Amino acid sequence: MQTVNLAEKFSKFQDYCKPRLIGEVNDFQVKAVKLKGEFLWHHHEAEDELFLVVKGTLRMKFRGHEAVVREGEFVIVPHGVEHLPVADEEVHIVLLEPKSTLNTGNISNERTVSQIERI
Amino acid sequence: MQTVNLAEKFSKFQDYCKPRLIGEVNDFQVKAVKLKGEFLWHHHEAEDELFLVVKGTLRMKFRGHEAVVREGEFVIVPHGVEHLPVADEEVHIVLLEPKSTLNTGNISNERTVSQIERI
Repeated sequence: MQTVNLAEKFSKFQDYCKPRLIGEVNDFQVKAVKLKGEFLWHHHEAEDELFLVVKGTLRMKFRGHEAVVREGEFVIVPHGVEHLPVADEEVHIVLLEPKSTLNTGNISNERTVSQIERI
Repeated sequence: MQTVNLAEKFSKFQDYCKPRLIGEVNDFQVKAVKLKGEFLWHHHEAEDELFLVVKGTLRMKFRGHEAVVREGEFVIVPHGVEHLPVADEEVHIVLLEPKSTLNTGNISNERTVSQIERI
């Protein structure tokens, strides 16, 4: 039962779009990810995703509208909903999602992280 | 897909030990709770619980040791593990746990919240 310090976890990596595992709660995972620029349009067949912003501002685009998520705010993307995470400047995000969640959802390409690193 | 502001949610209630529902992620719930003083020793048969501190300091007592959880930190309490949340001063906590989780776990008393309010 170790205390996890979010800032300390985010200091352990510098790359973007590559989530790290920082906790497990039953069949859910807690991940830390840095984002800068546009990710890609995708959806998850079965998994909802919570994006909690701990530094910076995330623009979560949906077809037809956009949620602006600032430090101390979160947005939940329901399964089946297409979304495009965009970060004009670097943003630090804590993800809460079922462990079956792939970062690129229904898309499989060079940005897909199939083996998540625990830090 | 509304953005949820944590500070705004915590401004909506003042009482202690009574979690409010602020989000749902598949079969998990996100809750906001304020704590001051000692809660009670309990455990959860099946549910792990994540406690993320967004204001103040939480002391999570276990049998034999204690985790001190400060702002920007979290602790995960695995199912089956007895714990006693203690807040010497008011602390604001975001809980992430399966929706089957009762706040008092295996204990049923006047502090048990069986119907959670959504705010």
